[in-house]
Amino acid sequence: MDLWFTETFGDVQAGWRIKQVLYQQRSRYQDVVVLDTVPFGRMLVLDGCVMTTERDEFAYHEMLVHPGLLAHPRPRAVCIVGGGDGGTVREVLKHATVERVVLAEIDEEVIAVSRKYLPSLASGLSDPRVEICVGDGAQYLREHEGDFDVVLSDSTDPIGPGVVLFGDDYFASAKRALRGTGLFVTQCKSLWVNVQMTRDVEARLAKHFRRVLPYVSMIPTYPTGSWSFHVASDGLDPRAPVDRARQEQIAGTTRYYTAAHQSGAFAVPAFYGRPADTVTT
Amino acid sequence: MDLWFTETFGDVQAGWRIKQVLYQQRSRYQDVVVLDTVPFGRMLVLDGCVMTTERDEFAYHEMLVHPGLLAHPRPRAVCIVGGGDGGTVREVLKHATVERVVLAEIDEEVIAVSRKYLPSLASGLSDPRVEICVGDGAQYLREHEGDFDVVLSDSTDPIGPGVVLFGDDYFASAKRALRGTGLFVTQCKSLWVNVQMTRDVEARLAKHFRRVLPYVSMIPTYPTGSWSFHVASDGLDPRAPVDRARQEQIAGTTRYYTAAHQSGAFAVPAFYGRPADTVTT
Repeated sequence: MDLWFTETFGDVQAGWRIKQVLYQQRSRYQDVVVLDTVPFGRMLVLDGCVMTTERDEFAYHEMLVHPGLLAHPRPRAVCIVGGGDGGTVREVLKHATVERVVLAEIDEEVIAVSRKYLPSLASGLSDPRVEICVGDGAQYLREHEGDFDVVLSDSTDPIGPGVVLFGDDYFASAKRALRGTGLFVTQCKSLWVNVQMTRDVEARLAKHFRRVLPYVSMIPTYPTGSWSFHVASDGLDPRAPVDRARQEQIAGTTRYYTAAHQSGAFAVPAFYGRPADTVTT
Repeated sequence: MDLWFTETFGDVQAGWRIKQVLYQQRSRYQDVVVLDTVPFGRMLVLDGCVMTTERDEFAYHEMLVHPGLLAHPRPRAVCIVGGGDGGTVREVLKHATVERVVLAEIDEEVIAVSRKYLPSLASGLSDPRVEICVGDGAQYLREHEGDFDVVLSDSTDPIGPGVVLFGDDYFASAKRALRGTGLFVTQCKSLWVNVQMTRDVEARLAKHFRRVLPYVSMIPTYPTGSWSFHVASDGLDPRAPVDRARQEQIAGTTRYYTAAHQSGAFAVPAFYGRPADTVTT
């Protein structure tokens, strides 16, 4: 049987040949599907959108985590909003300084499905340093001022229900949840689709943090094949030289991140900085 | 009518909604198609593979040309093998030092179609500095030893008929076509599909050039959404600081290339350097 899963975003489609549907249920919040694909291994699909796959998830999770955590002099407590699949937790736990990781995920079904079907991502969820809080991540941050060195927003996109995780109130809560000169990192979206939306997220972050920097990663199964992130801080600059020993320890474990990405990932296309561009799909 | 063009590569598909088919003919060498797509404007398709689109072609052409040309102290004569659409010529002509550009394209139909349907790419083809040679680019290089400062291989992929443009004989000819310490740049393919093939191309180039460096660009309409290139030279390193005035002049014209890409583009995923990886589709 010639079986394909196709994701349509606007006037573009991406499809992957699949072996079988491993799981398909409606959770309290969304449609949760796990596919076994031929080219990318197992794939988690939420509400019809590819969230992660076994074969390229590292390009997302490593790049959400390492540039920011390495820019912090001593990250001990980290909060992850979203990220129920566990990939971000796994990468955060690679940092030897980390003593506590809070995962604030709203949909416990995502966690359960990942534990069962995506063990290479969920591996870190049982680590004693990890505290899983099933609930609203925005609310969690509001109630935990000054508790974290780094907050990572591993959310759905700034469209539909995820829009609150790109709003002013949320960014203000993320800022207040930091202690000292911390860092906030959020995934954003592809720069190649409605780039103005990414610029707007940067501008909104800049109301709360003194320095906001966009950066990118190549992620084949995400729309357009590349993705953007913003790292925001009042004083830390990820492009500056980082502790060599910590960086080497991390880079010894990664499949995407290298020392060259610590500054190289911040080379974003020229059109991002040019309001007049017409590069949108 | 809900009209889509879909490209299938292995077990992955990419599709774009189209308004109409503008041109469709078999040339002496290949099927040549021009589509008017909704998300990416006009699209040139050769033998079913997307070659270029109006909306993202700059990410390919700028990155094939500028890192290499800026690394050369004074590029005056440049040979382009392939590249009949004219996008590479257009970017090369931005360099004020360039006096002569030879375009060695085997299929004159591609040139004619681009002049008619893709004027924003073909614009440079009528420049007095440009010499168009319709014929075998590999043979052209063999017959023009020591004529060029830079050779750019803007070819089809290292599969099928394009395979000769990734072979030992061709790389040897490219090397001999250079005068002084020149540079050779070739597009390669996505790192996310059969990465070993990209490593093999690097190893083959390394038999002819003292330094070979892979680098990447995000190109949404190419398979997996990103692409690799190799720049090869006996002495020039594109990552080293380049002439600031020349770089600013170029970066003032680009939509993808920025000064940060001169080194940042060389941040390739860690798995590329690790033979044991399993990241292939």
